Amino acid sequence: MRVGIIGGTGPQGRGLALRFAGAGHSVLIGSRDPAQAIQSAATLAGGFPELTPPEGGSNDDVANRSDVVVIAVPWAAHEEMVRTLAPYLRGKVVVDCVNPLAFDARGPRPILLVEGSAAAQAQALLPDSRVVAAFHHLAAGMLLAGLTPLEHEDILLAGNEAAAKETVQELCQAITGHRGIDAGSLHNAGPLEAMTSVLLAVNKTYRVKSGIQLTGMPAR
Amino acid sequence: MRVGIIGGTGPQGRGLALRFAGAGHSVLIGSRDPAQAIQSAATLAGGFPELTPPEGGSNDDVANRSDVVVIAVPWAAHEEMVRTLAPYLRGKVVVDCVNPLAFDARGPRPILLVEGSAAAQAQALLPDSRVVAAFHHLAAGMLLAGLTPLEHEDILLAGNEAAAKETVQELCQAITGHRGIDAGSLHNAGPLEAMTSVLLAVNKTYRVKSGIQLTGMPAR
Repeated sequence: MRVGIIGGTGPQGRGLALRFAGAGHSVLIGSRDPAQAIQSAATLAGGFPELTPPEGGSNDDVANRSDVVVIAVPWAAHEEMVRTLAPYLRGKVVVDCVNPLAFDARGPRPILLVEGSAAAQAQALLPDSRVVAAFHHLAAGMLLAGLTPLEHEDILLAGNEAAAKETVQELCQAITGHRGIDAGSLHNAGPLEAMTSVLLAVNKTYRVKSGIQLTGMPAR
Repeated sequence: MRVGIIGGTGPQGRGLALRFAGAGHSVLIGSRDPAQAIQSAATLAGGFPELTPPEGGSNDDVANRSDVVVIAVPWAAHEEMVRTLAPYLRGKVVVDCVNPLAFDARGPRPILLVEGSAAAQAQALLPDSRVVAAFHHLAAGMLLAGLTPLEHEDILLAGNEAAAKETVQELCQAITGHRGIDAGSLHNAGPLEAMTSVLLAVNKTYRVKSGIQLTGMPAR
């Protein structure tokens, strides 16, 4: 699969790029600044010589050339970025892993959106794309630590179209070594995004890099 | 601890009552209909003769007599019940495990609240109580299955006061055999409540009774 990562030079984006490239996917790292994307791709390739080296490019170029497009920009840039890229995303699976969070003296908290979630906002802006919410709960530090599968983590995903979710469930193998878990319709993207606030609070209190595993599931 | 369960005759309430009584707490089951509460308490005591038998009573009576009060009513009854019980809850730890959810053709979805969560709504109505959100993700069927600790489950809890959270973290031992996890301020109650929608969707799709475990935590 040709996987493009918009905002791919941030820690989350680089972590996903590493894992997808490690699993043999063709990976394109996008940035507002193509030079920075090319630099990020080269750094990843240098650190892991066994990879098919990722390519770098502008966000537009990466969105245009990819089969599956992962949106990994900061929340503040989400709406504008999705609007800008809309022409390149028609007919494609768009994976939204953006977490709308705010921080105050009490710690992190989810931002309440009229649309219910960043992913639902993206779907509303991209009526001809198939948006799947996924990859919210993976600590960037864990993704970037190497290529050993994060077997204890579950990737939960939400979306309105079964085939698009299938594609992303398969893609999860690159990260955890097992398929992602179908967590229902895009109505459930909100809880997935907001749970990141819980994980960040736990990380701070317990000085850990926490993730989620569902209990009671069939053997993975 | 004397633990009262408001709406204690529902599956979730009975399940919590069983587990708390099994751990040696003094448990009071409340209902709008005291006769039904007494019946529920007797049925639990009959099924598990080793328990200190729970008592049944009206919700008012139970709220009045308990040290820790668990609100386990359906979402539709939440606001009115909290208002009604407010005089009995002053100075107490109030544990809110209500999930504001709706269901449509696409499955379950969280209801968006201006307050951010049922627990925050309760805290706004109970300025003299210390509200902690907890016990959202435990399947009633698992709670009611017996007294074996649900060791693989984590109980995540959110609240604004450390001492109140401590009390509830201890109470979690009765269910999982280990302390609950501090998931931050009451701002994070929303994600905990909403995640129940994710678990219900997973349960339906995979025909399981799913729960949550955090990965990356110190040994429990």
